[in-house]
Amino acid sequence: MGAIGVAAAAAAISIAPKVAKHLRLNLNSFLTTFPKTTITTTTMPLFPRCRHCLSSSLSPPFSTRSFCTATLQSSDAAATAHTKVGEFRRKLKVADVKGGPDQGLDKLGQSLVITGWVRTLRVQSSVTFVEINDGSCLSNMQCVMDSGAEGYDQVESGSITTGASIWVQGVVVESQGSKQKVELKVNKIVLVGKSDPSFPIQKKRASREFLRTKAHLRPRTNTFGAVARVRNALAYATHKFFQENGFIWVASPIITASDCEGAGEQFCVTTLIPNSHETADSPVDAIPKVNNGLIDWSQDFFGKPAFLTVSGQLNAETYATALSDVYTFGPTFRAENSNTSRHLAEFWMIEPELAFADLNDDMACATAYLQSVVKWGCDLQSEHERYITEEAFGGCPVIIRDYPKDIKAFYMRQNDDGRTVAAMDMLVPKIGELIGGSQREERLEYLEARLDDLKLNKDAYWWYLDLRRYGSVPHAGFGLGFERLVQFATGMDNIRDAIPFPRTPASAEF
Amino acid sequence: MGAIGVAAAAAAISIAPKVAKHLRLNLNSFLTTFPKTTITTTTMPLFPRCRHCLSSSLSPPFSTRSFCTATLQSSDAAATAHTKVGEFRRKLKVADVKGGPDQGLDKLGQSLVITGWVRTLRVQSSVTFVEINDGSCLSNMQCVMDSGAEGYDQVESGSITTGASIWVQGVVVESQGSKQKVELKVNKIVLVGKSDPSFPIQKKRASREFLRTKAHLRPRTNTFGAVARVRNALAYATHKFFQENGFIWVASPIITASDCEGAGEQFCVTTLIPNSHETADSPVDAIPKVNNGLIDWSQDFFGKPAFLTVSGQLNAETYATALSDVYTFGPTFRAENSNTSRHLAEFWMIEPELAFADLNDDMACATAYLQSVVKWGCDLQSEHERYITEEAFGGCPVIIRDYPKDIKAFYMRQNDDGRTVAAMDMLVPKIGELIGGSQREERLEYLEARLDDLKLNKDAYWWYLDLRRYGSVPHAGFGLGFERLVQFATGMDNIRDAIPFPRTPASAEF
Repeated sequence: MGAIGVAAAAAAISIAPKVAKHLRLNLNSFLTTFPKTTITTTTMPLFPRCRHCLSSSLSPPFSTRSFCTATLQSSDAAATAHTKVGEFRRKLKVADVKGGPDQGLDKLGQSLVITGWVRTLRVQSSVTFVEINDGSCLSNMQCVMDSGAEGYDQVESGSITTGASIWVQGVVVESQGSKQKVELKVNKIVLVGKSDPSFPIQKKRASREFLRTKAHLRPRTNTFGAVARVRNALAYATHKFFQENGFIWVASPIITASDCEGAGEQFCVTTLIPNSHETADSPVDAIPKVNNGLIDWSQDFFGKPAFLTVSGQLNAETYATALSDVYTFGPTFRAENSNTSRHLAEFWMIEPELAFADLNDDMACATAYLQSVVKWGCDLQSEHERYITEEAFGGCPVIIRDYPKDIKAFYMRQNDDGRTVAAMDMLVPKIGELIGGSQREERLEYLEARLDDLKLNKDAYWWYLDLRRYGSVPHAGFGLGFERLVQFATGMDNIRDAIPFPRTPASAEF
Repeated sequence: MGAIGVAAAAAAISIAPKVAKHLRLNLNSFLTTFPKTTITTTTMPLFPRCRHCLSSSLSPPFSTRSFCTATLQSSDAAATAHTKVGEFRRKLKVADVKGGPDQGLDKLGQSLVITGWVRTLRVQSSVTFVEINDGSCLSNMQCVMDSGAEGYDQVESGSITTGASIWVQGVVVESQGSKQKVELKVNKIVLVGKSDPSFPIQKKRASREFLRTKAHLRPRTNTFGAVARVRNALAYATHKFFQENGFIWVASPIITASDCEGAGEQFCVTTLIPNSHETADSPVDAIPKVNNGLIDWSQDFFGKPAFLTVSGQLNAETYATALSDVYTFGPTFRAENSNTSRHLAEFWMIEPELAFADLNDDMACATAYLQSVVKWGCDLQSEHERYITEEAFGGCPVIIRDYPKDIKAFYMRQNDDGRTVAAMDMLVPKIGELIGGSQREERLEYLEARLDDLKLNKDAYWWYLDLRRYGSVPHAGFGLGFERLVQFATGMDNIRDAIPFPRTPASAEF
């Protein structure tokens, strides 16, 4: 059967060039027909030749331009029937029902389906309450049913327990309880997946330390569900802010032979260590070496030592000096053996870089950014509000600027006093440094002198120096540790609770 | 001076708790005052205590709630004056001037400033033309000046050449040329950074192979500037599509002890190799080993072998089975020694995961996604249009589904025929596989049997199996190689030209 798959794939690709020459659409016709396209499925003969594609390619104006799907079945089953692929629809979520200003009262009388996980089940004499959460918001959908509901036997038999996934159909009614405006009067309940009695997320409060050992299940708790949603809102607000201000997102490289900070502790990335994933038996002797016993880096994947990046800044500068304003948003790494509540070995960083800009522009941008993302406003849930008011904004952020040059990185622009650099840090309560930024040294001779002072290898920075050699511009930027922003917005004490799967010394589980 | 910086930072943090207890804002007052806040700078005494923060914290209703900046100057310079930080303004770009439907005609007579890099300079008898590009669009701003313009001596002296960065002020006038509707009649020109005559991006067309060796300068070319902008548009469109459909972005881990695909070739991440960045001299003997000569992994950073992820899917599944619909968008890695135009060692992947969903939902989502991001519509420049119509859409995308189970990964859901799995690939012309997805096996017993069949270690997947043990749900997802999408949208032949800094065998430069 393997061969069929390959042949089918090859055939599907091979027809494309033939089709291609017939398909010199102009963009207008493309844009008007593509969105309205009907999407069809088709079953294919053994060596498929999609008749639908061919016929439409030969019959402009392509009003039925389509995606085709082919089922890889035996040749006997091959047919040329075309059936429509279902439309992709946004699922109805609890947040959609209860998230509006009326908290669901506008949906009274509507019949709807909710899917999710059972948070609690209370069986009373005449009526049973099931609280369902689907992760779309903090709030559960309270479902009320009596023994007349279809599938109620699954409640009676004890199959539906905390942690089980269920499907319920019912009608939105006004709630008698004070905790919510509406609830679902259930007509039908279906157990989708039962939950083993060992389910570790029970109603009693689990410690955050314990939940870190259950990182795969902790998003099912109120706290970590909320953190995930706030984190998501912050990430999207970040993209939105920069996009709306004309910045271009640049993917800075993760694996690099450069060391931006000059002295960061980096993870080595290698294929030299002979290690299969199923066994940890790796003989040291098998590592290739040259005659004097040193590692033979020429045999490594990249032909020389390579590391995980500590910052995308230098790379971002290359794009800022071509596209004017850019930002990175990606993972960065520190191999520091810091087992604290403030450090991660792997964390996400946002690094904007502004061309034709100085430190004042940089500070203004950092401030505007922070004000923008904690104005993500209309997506706020009460959970966020509570965190923000009670925990995060317990004081004023402070920016400190113009640090002594000796304690700062080589690329920061020297101030006229000769002793300080145009650097700035934004400090926030509880977190400490949230943002660190600087104007970059755009003057080639200053930058080279600084590299010499610090005994850094100028040759390794040839491309970075080139940016000062060809049309150099004043530019500035900053770095923001995204998990610290999540802490700032949520009030989580430990940074390990601000990222889904924290990596710290001795911990790369999940 | 180092001590001052540290002390100042410490002092700035230490005041926060004192401030905190006075700042129990409710969200409404916070939201109304925060956006309108005035942002002030303040210079600080040697051990700064921000009087502004303290006074506002003690004087509700906090109408002057502020960010403060402190200059780390000597104690003599300390003062308590507050000055406003400048407002952050979106810079005027060439795209803002020429990007509208009138191509700039609506701005006739306006005086404005443009900054950017010189693409070409033509000195004619009575008038000089300078084409400036700022990376905001393919189009240059044509600047026209005569010898009366302030700073014209820099043109005469030959300082302003291709690649130099300049600042020009002028008035928008109708262009006499046929290539643009408007141009800038320059009153003043300032050379910001000259360009060394060795500037390698000259007007004559450079090959893409050559430009790969100049990855730090290639975004200054028409082609790579356009690719960067299309890439950015695709990334933002991706976030937009999933956010608007209720998906939550999840950061799947980069460093992992898991191996999703079961047999991917992975990079090892280690701190065991004694390597300083400045020298590649790393003795093999210095690697810690246990008695039998095997590497002593207990001394490695994570206490065991760790790798760069090949996929975030398994992790995404843990969040999908808590939050319903999620997606990842992050870097993934393959240590395959494939020196082809189709492979990268480091690439970005988009991996949506849908709970309560089957393969049909998955295909519908993949199709809707692709249609959505190539409708990014209003951001289209003519450059994109040309690529899209002439190169990318030279045929129909095809989805192939239901592959033989033996050629697919362990986590795919077995179809009722017992021989195939609910997998799907979307193939597009020239690129081949753009999207690969599947419904996931949600039945614990099937999944365990499959792991046994493939002789995979079930213990290593304990947390993945837990998802089937506690409230399992039908779910599905797909992975899309982002650089292939960029190729699809731009028509770039080589995937190394679809990412800013490609990583391939023997290549981790920049």
